[in-house]
Amino acid sequence: MTINVLIAGINGATANTVVVGTTLGVDRELTGGSILASLDPEQLTQFPSIEEIRFAGWDIGDGGDALDVAKKYDILPSSVLGRADAVPVNVYRPAVTAHDVEELAGALPILEAQDQVQGVRDNIKQFATASNSPSKSIVVYLAAPGKVVDQDVLDWNEGDFEVAIKSNDPRITSGMIYCYSALSEGCGFIDFTPTATLEIRALRDMAERLRLPIAGRDGSTGQTLLKSVIGEMMRNRSLKVDGWYSTNIIGNNDGLVLSRRDHAEIKTADKMDVLIPVLGYDDFDHVVDIRYYRPRGDNKESWDAVDFSGWHNQKMSFRIDWMGRDSILAAPLVLDLVRLVYRSMELERGGFQAHLDIYFKRPLGKGWRPFSHMYNDLKEQVKADSMN
Amino acid sequence: MTINVLIAGINGATANTVVVGTTLGVDRELTGGSILASLDPEQLTQFPSIEEIRFAGWDIGDGGDALDVAKKYDILPSSVLGRADAVPVNVYRPAVTAHDVEELAGALPILEAQDQVQGVRDNIKQFATASNSPSKSIVVYLAAPGKVVDQDVLDWNEGDFEVAIKSNDPRITSGMIYCYSALSEGCGFIDFTPTATLEIRALRDMAERLRLPIAGRDGSTGQTLLKSVIGEMMRNRSLKVDGWYSTNIIGNNDGLVLSRRDHAEIKTADKMDVLIPVLGYDDFDHVVDIRYYRPRGDNKESWDAVDFSGWHNQKMSFRIDWMGRDSILAAPLVLDLVRLVYRSMELERGGFQAHLDIYFKRPLGKGWRPFSHMYNDLKEQVKADSMN
Amino acid sequence: MTINVLIAGINGATANTVVVGTTLGVDRELTGGSILASLDPEQLTQFPSIEEIRFAGWDIGDGGDALDVAKKYDILPSSVLGRADAVPVNVYRPAVTAHDVEELAGALPILEAQDQVQGVRDNIKQFATASNSPSKSIVVYLAAPGKVVDQDVLDWNEGDFEVAIKSNDPRITSGMIYCYSALSEGCGFIDFTPTATLEIRALRDMAERLRLPIAGRDGSTGQTLLKSVIGEMMRNRSLKVDGWYSTNIIGNNDGLVLSRRDHAEIKTADKMDVLIPVLGYDDFDHVVDIRYYRPRGDNKESWDAVDFSGWHNQKMSFRIDWMGRDSILAAPLVLDLVRLVYRSMELERGGFQAHLDIYFKRPLGKGWRPFSHMYNDLKEQVKADSMN
Amino acid sequence: MTINVLIAGINGATANTVVVGTTLGVDRELTGGSILASLDPEQLTQFPSIEEIRFAGWDIGDGGDALDVAKKYDILPSSVLGRADAVPVNVYRPAVTAHDVEELAGALPILEAQDQVQGVRDNIKQFATASNSPSKSIVVYLAAPGKVVDQDVLDWNEGDFEVAIKSNDPRITSGMIYCYSALSEGCGFIDFTPTATLEIRALRDMAERLRLPIAGRDGSTGQTLLKSVIGEMMRNRSLKVDGWYSTNIIGNNDGLVLSRRDHAEIKTADKMDVLIPVLGYDDFDHVVDIRYYRPRGDNKESWDAVDFSGWHNQKMSFRIDWMGRDSILAAPLVLDLVRLVYRSMELERGGFQAHLDIYFKRPLGKGWRPFSHMYNDLKEQVKADSMN
Repeated sequence: MTINVLIAGINGATANTVVVGTTLGVDRELTGGSILASLDPEQLTQFPSIEEIRFAGWDIGDGGDALDVAKKYDILPSSVLGRADAVPVNVYRPAVTAHDVEELAGALPILEAQDQVQGVRDNIKQFATASNSPSKSIVVYLAAPGKVVDQDVLDWNEGDFEVAIKSNDPRITSGMIYCYSALSEGCGFIDFTPTATLEIRALRDMAERLRLPIAGRDGSTGQTLLKSVIGEMMRNRSLKVDGWYSTNIIGNNDGLVLSRRDHAEIKTADKMDVLIPVLGYDDFDHVVDIRYYRPRGDNKESWDAVDFSGWHNQKMSFRIDWMGRDSILAAPLVLDLVRLVYRSMELERGGFQAHLDIYFKRPLGKGWRPFSHMYNDLKEQVKADSMN
Repeated sequence: MTINVLIAGINGATANTVVVGTTLGVDRELTGGSILASLDPEQLTQFPSIEEIRFAGWDIGDGGDALDVAKKYDILPSSVLGRADAVPVNVYRPAVTAHDVEELAGALPILEAQDQVQGVRDNIKQFATASNSPSKSIVVYLAAPGKVVDQDVLDWNEGDFEVAIKSNDPRITSGMIYCYSALSEGCGFIDFTPTATLEIRALRDMAERLRLPIAGRDGSTGQTLLKSVIGEMMRNRSLKVDGWYSTNIIGNNDGLVLSRRDHAEIKTADKMDVLIPVLGYDDFDHVVDIRYYRPRGDNKESWDAVDFSGWHNQKMSFRIDWMGRDSILAAPLVLDLVRLVYRSMELERGGFQAHLDIYFKRPLGKGWRPFSHMYNDLKEQVKADSMN
Repeated sequence: MTINVLIAGINGATANTVVVGTTLGVDRELTGGSILASLDPEQLTQFPSIEEIRFAGWDIGDGGDALDVAKKYDILPSSVLGRADAVPVNVYRPAVTAHDVEELAGALPILEAQDQVQGVRDNIKQFATASNSPSKSIVVYLAAPGKVVDQDVLDWNEGDFEVAIKSNDPRITSGMIYCYSALSEGCGFIDFTPTATLEIRALRDMAERLRLPIAGRDGSTGQTLLKSVIGEMMRNRSLKVDGWYSTNIIGNNDGLVLSRRDHAEIKTADKMDVLIPVLGYDDFDHVVDIRYYRPRGDNKESWDAVDFSGWHNQKMSFRIDWMGRDSILAAPLVLDLVRLVYRSMELERGGFQAHLDIYFKRPLGKGWRPFSHMYNDLKEQVKADSMN
Repeated sequence: MTINVLIAGINGATANTVVVGTTLGVDRELTGGSILASLDPEQLTQFPSIEEIRFAGWDIGDGGDALDVAKKYDILPSSVLGRADAVPVNVYRPAVTAHDVEELAGALPILEAQDQVQGVRDNIKQFATASNSPSKSIVVYLAAPGKVVDQDVLDWNEGDFEVAIKSNDPRITSGMIYCYSALSEGCGFIDFTPTATLEIRALRDMAERLRLPIAGRDGSTGQTLLKSVIGEMMRNRSLKVDGWYSTNIIGNNDGLVLSRRDHAEIKTADKMDVLIPVLGYDDFDHVVDIRYYRPRGDNKESWDAVDFSGWHNQKMSFRIDWMGRDSILAAPLVLDLVRLVYRSMELERGGFQAHLDIYFKRPLGKGWRPFSHMYNDLKEQVKADSMN
């Protein structure tokens, strides 16, 4: 059995790290940063292993060989990058470019939505056919973060959505085209970025109707996860949070895109929403900034200043300076999600998967709850799925 | 019904904050920093309220009126300290001074162990008699942190202990005298400091035999709790901790005592032990420092630098600068413990109380485990105790 | 001899702290945070003492008694605030409200420029008349930070400026009205905020023509000063700065005004300009953010992350978390400036005063240079002025 | 003309970085981190260039080829380490091992002092002879940090010292043997470590008598330099320092040696002494810790928490987290010193060189003063020396 993973934005830092790091590391124990790896290995026997994954994808940029791209990023250790001369990966063209990424796509023409859907569906079929063994396919969205979408569009039902595609509605985004095409081809779909794709009623309905798992949105790699565990502790100790200031500095392409105000809006929103459900109240100041700062490269740094009150309302505070590596933290989460979504596909469990909420900044299953609760939900579901 | 709380070291910063803050704040909602307050209030109806507590205690120093002491500490807000002219509290004398606190006690003579036991027992009876209503008494140890104790002493059985008291064995510590006296008088006993008292077999056996609850050791107020929640998250995400450097700066008397190497030893040990059971491995560097730094006063600041590895063994790190207020964080935990121990007394559940482990740096119930597990144990037991 | 100090924005945090802290602290040694106080006292005998200062001012808000305002701010210690029942200070009305502060001024009508000038001049005369001794007057601008001003306006000569006043040109700002009125009345003028006032050619020319000292702009209290000293050290050690990320969080009214994008622009610019002249190159990334974060109040916190390269181009970094108190740091600088400007008035040294550059984020004398050079310039000029 | 640089402890991290980084980097512009490089290049024409340096040295350990050692340290970038197959350097044996390094030297026998002196002198002659051109030799002490030395020994005059050598006095240290041998052979001597060597009267007298320059002690690379510049700023702004807590974590051999209490003592003392002369007062709390923390390796991290008072005695604070690379910061300073000491040798300026004070934690020329003053002294002397 094989898992075909098709990644939108395959030449981006995280996607490329997943592809090259997995391909060149398959013989290593790639457990670092994986939530699945922390569970009882006996529960995981029903889940596919990383060796069963094949990668392909789409990208606006030229890219060239994946290993060359990886060397430019300089994210994986040189001991890994030196293990091969090339990592050839199918990059299907053209990549989808709807109006939401217009200014990022440069001179690329924006094709008719219907044609783009057809192209993506053809690519998915093509890649599956090229597989030597029976396979299932999963599409992972790792392309540029999107912009905010109108409520109107969020409310589209399946019929509205079809009409929008056919009439080439300019509000159709790249994410929607990938997701719609994936579901139409019987694929699971994961949105690891902050787009509105999976909040569109039409796509959620479609996933449920077709019993296809969907998971999103916006992978949670560092600051937000810390917020959720520390927030949980503050709540359990009745230490009242008065304010939480968070700033992020990052120098990769993700940071560059987010330095455009309209693209930052949705990301910042995702980062804002975590605290209220974790703390259980909303009377505190919450500021979240993301700034493009070139010297940091892919090494995302976040700094949080938290003010809280204790006994007799006395004020205290703490600060956290988190120096993560964005793609190194994201890659094992992407692999976890692929394995988990694959298992859901086998079990024909469609729609959102609440046990995957722990992976996201804006979990669309049951929504934000304390980290330990989400971890428990994952553990219990994995256990159940291993007995099925 | 009344709870008589007798505190060893009643003029210390934490004890005095508990006494004055509770006395002058009974009419306020003193929930900040309380773990109990985060639970469902309906489960707490069987637990005594703070209004039912009366305080007395022992101290080496002169002290004077508790409010005067509090004003010197300047820990509670002036809006509270200004609410009364005095907070008279019984300070029984002499306080116990065994050989472990010799150099702290100054010129005070060290009395025969047997006489000290008798004195403490008399004080406990005296205070209970002065109560207008039926009452139970609890002794809380909040005096100076002790030194390391010989394995020999830890292994004493009840008979050995009696002999040691009678023969005035110099290895008898102040903590042991308070605990032994408390249990002899039918009181619960809480050790909120890093002493070896509750690890002495004789005293544990005695508590079980007499069905008296004991709880300890070393209240967990800041850095250690953070370690336990963040350590839990690191484990759940398979982020391998390579090293954890912790330093603490504090300028109160606690800090001064801990600046003596022999007294620091046991405290540092307590702070060291948390990570291994939480992380589930021990191949990492762990450094814990405590330094006396006068400008900080009671505002304990801790700084942690944590190094960890993720996917493909890539190195990352984070730092936490925690600016707590030692006594403000400790006070509500002491009050929680008093209420919880009282309920255990009512239920005649003797010995260590595993559901209280969350309160301690070195939990003597079931030992260290992830914060969320300990929180759950507390929640479940409180629920059970509220239905009893 | 008396110094009449008239402050625009007298009810703001810094101005009020200056007025109340000086009035109630005149008998104390108010040297903390003063640069002048670090110089040889013998050089200062020709400079006026703080006792010789009398305060008055203007403000949009109602204010009431200065001590009441100070109690609301809660910036000065309660031991000082409790020393008197009231600190009555003349607040002249109406305050100037030109178009640049329209949205801050609320419902206040915007009067004709000419009338506003007349009003301010009358107030200055009035206050001088009320003095019992011969006096000189200085106007200090401490009102809301302004917006960016057109190049056109910067280039106005004295004639253009007169025409603009007479024709009620909407580009006239509050700062210009105060400065023009001050100079017309023979006063020195200090701009402690980030406005374009003193960069208008007409006003600079006027100050030189009339031999009146002017000083600005934008008092340097924390982060910028640190940048200048650390930047100087980096340069002297040939440690190449690759990037400097600075964020500021502040919860006072200054922060609120700066949270409006148009008002932040000029402030951020002032904070940006310091590094290039200090380092001597411009090929580095420099990001400066200011965010309104209510829990901080007047306690401005700034966090800097600095990346640099050393031998063999190896990368290193450091971070600084500065927890200052904005008004407490600013007040002694304002007093220093008043004393220094007064001395320049006595010596009839008009125009910008290069030795005052050390006090400003955007020094308009000789411009940014390393801190130690600016300190030396101050020292030398004070020495010269004490022998005059 | 050639400069023979003989390094005691040539296989240590800093020495090896100097040797390999210089040898493989001569064709690069190695200015990063050099103080000399920040001066006017025209003043430096009289100073030797780095190309003129040849290296040899002594070490207790085996070492092997210098490039192999460098690869183990992994301090220089791989782009540099890959430029050659070997960097052969003369390592003379045996290295000096006096009683002060007994427990570090392992099983090595401790030879007679007189024989050790003879050995070192022979090595120096041997290396000079092997030079193709006329040369001068400089000995740099970079071996293990020493222990505190008795006042008695510090007071030895030249006669006492001779007697001590001849009688094999056990208080003779390795540093003394190297220095005495160097001076006897007409070499300049630099102590880049915290030993008492250059504070021994006999050796200072000898250097002056022989007109040989000596420089020390304890190279200042990170935290201490920051302290001196920031301390200077605090003083110039009359911001009163109430306390300065400094902790250092380092995982290289230097850190390991310093984790021995007796060796840490002298280093900590050097780090303590900087603040008092810079601030001009001593009524503040100063704590300095150095801890061995393996994950840091050669990347020394220091964290400082500084408390200060401003106007009306209001309390403020800041924290600095400095992440330097010990050897990368030290190497260019060592090279600067070699070039500067060489020039002093040419000018026959013996004894301590006040203009070199800026390079040291405990400057033995004129002692600690503000960074900008020391920088000025360097600049002026270099200027003078370039005109000689």
